[in-house]
Amino acid sequence: MVSDSGMRPSLKRFFEEKSLLIEKILDEHLPREERFPQKIHKAMRYSLFSGGKRLRPLLVLECCRVCGGDEEAAFPAAAAVEYIHTYSLIHDDLPCMDDDDLRRGRPTVHKVFGEAMAVLAGDGLLTAAFGALTSIKDSAVLKRVLSELAKAAGSLGMVGGQTLDITSEQEIPPETPLEEYVFSIHLLKTASLIKASCRIGAMCAYAKGAELSAITAYGRNIGLAFQICDDILDETGSKEETGKKTHKDREKGKITYPLVFGLERSRSEAARLIEEAKESLRIFGEKAEILSSLADFIISRTY
Amino acid sequence: MVSDSGMRPSLKRFFEEKSLLIEKILDEHLPREERFPQKIHKAMRYSLFSGGKRLRPLLVLECCRVCGGDEEAAFPAAAAVEYIHTYSLIHDDLPCMDDDDLRRGRPTVHKVFGEAMAVLAGDGLLTAAFGALTSIKDSAVLKRVLSELAKAAGSLGMVGGQTLDITSEQEIPPETPLEEYVFSIHLLKTASLIKASCRIGAMCAYAKGAELSAITAYGRNIGLAFQICDDILDETGSKEETGKKTHKDREKGKITYPLVFGLERSRSEAARLIEEAKESLRIFGEKAEILSSLADFIISRTY
Repeated sequence: MVSDSGMRPSLKRFFEEKSLLIEKILDEHLPREERFPQKIHKAMRYSLFSGGKRLRPLLVLECCRVCGGDEEAAFPAAAAVEYIHTYSLIHDDLPCMDDDDLRRGRPTVHKVFGEAMAVLAGDGLLTAAFGALTSIKDSAVLKRVLSELAKAAGSLGMVGGQTLDITSEQEIPPETPLEEYVFSIHLLKTASLIKASCRIGAMCAYAKGAELSAITAYGRNIGLAFQICDDILDETGSKEETGKKTHKDREKGKITYPLVFGLERSRSEAARLIEEAKESLRIFGEKAEILSSLADFIISRTY
Repeated sequence: MVSDSGMRPSLKRFFEEKSLLIEKILDEHLPREERFPQKIHKAMRYSLFSGGKRLRPLLVLECCRVCGGDEEAAFPAAAAVEYIHTYSLIHDDLPCMDDDDLRRGRPTVHKVFGEAMAVLAGDGLLTAAFGALTSIKDSAVLKRVLSELAKAAGSLGMVGGQTLDITSEQEIPPETPLEEYVFSIHLLKTASLIKASCRIGAMCAYAKGAELSAITAYGRNIGLAFQICDDILDETGSKEETGKKTHKDREKGKITYPLVFGLERSRSEAARLIEEAKESLRIFGEKAEILSSLADFIISRTY
């Protein structure tokens, strides 16, 4: 859910301007609801078009632009990262995972379509993400983007992070320092896809060297900050504010930054990461204003 | 499980020769078991290395060779199709789907690692499949293969077929003729990935026109026959023969070819499809002997 509070006017304009464009891109790379078998497309679209912030596709487009690329070249990749994000939410919400009934203020996919359909809708979206990449015109760019996305989403990235998240409810490996463990979860679970979204945007603009490194550092740091803020919101927010059930982490005994280090240290760590993210944007000068505001917006959600 | 009965000597030799190669290819494109987080890689590999027939990667390699291609160029795609097949088995076996405890004579992934890990292991393998494609050297071939695989595995292919399969347990659309409906399930659920495996092999050999059409017809027909035979085995086979629980379709009220049209008509329909498949191999002459034997082998399982 996009809340306007804490958004600079230029960022607000950016969200408004890009909003319709993103919805159009997301619609274009997915079979229509009428396509046979209708049930699976209904479930996939129910979840996809439920008012997400679209942070990841926005990052793809904006990182492409900042690196001097043609925004349109990044459209297929923008769709792909949001499909991946949406599939991960559907599977995370399953009864055998986080068992959530509510997402963005609406009943979750398995509540509406049943568990089997939720598994399949996630599988369908994950597959559609990679299918969307075939619309990238330049085959060399396609190859780089595919590699980046598969790594970020797979068992060494997001799926690996979800594994740690699940495991943390049951067992903490005794030899790992707790801060490092929390950090690994965040890095894999959330930061990997956010970082990849930024890098993929840059790749669509043929960015290399210093520019790609700057975008990588930016993506990694806002990604880590994002997860800390999300966990702070789970701890401090209400169902009305977040559109989903809160205080789940504590109930489930999950290992999160605020639960391990407290709210104060979590807020200051998030603030430090955001400053570092903005610092790495320097080489882009004024062109990076939106990315800088996006970083501030991420942390503003928690105050 | 590979049974030798009904296999021609040349096909038996082919299976033996390729067996180690395929295991090596499957191993190479997946993170090792020691890689962090170990748990997910253990689960992915548990399922992958449990003695499957490897029909799909064998088809990739052999269709590539028959079309005059370099087998090695098809290695990444061969891994990809088996990862996709394995992920689909893991998710199909979940309690919310087919609820199977046994697969290839061993406890299913969710029985050993829990449901959450089974969902994630499937997600990890599906993602790894697309990641493996980045090892295809020729970017133009990569793009064609990616497009083919995403379509075959996604909501207009395998995921769509699984949707129909699940739906058939609950509701048959009243306006659809039953034979057509069964056919749609088979075409999407099984034939699409088998057909794609054949086409992808051909694509790795730069096949076009008549050759690609012949391979397409072959793949479609053996794919359809394969599913009919699988359903016959579920109806007539024992747990010992198949390595999994049988008579499930009948118990669940699934709509399968043998349950709708009887065993006799199912066998003759499968035989007709296999003959048609072999017929389309004619343009390749003697080179297609193995593909022809593979077609016979598929149907021999049911006698």
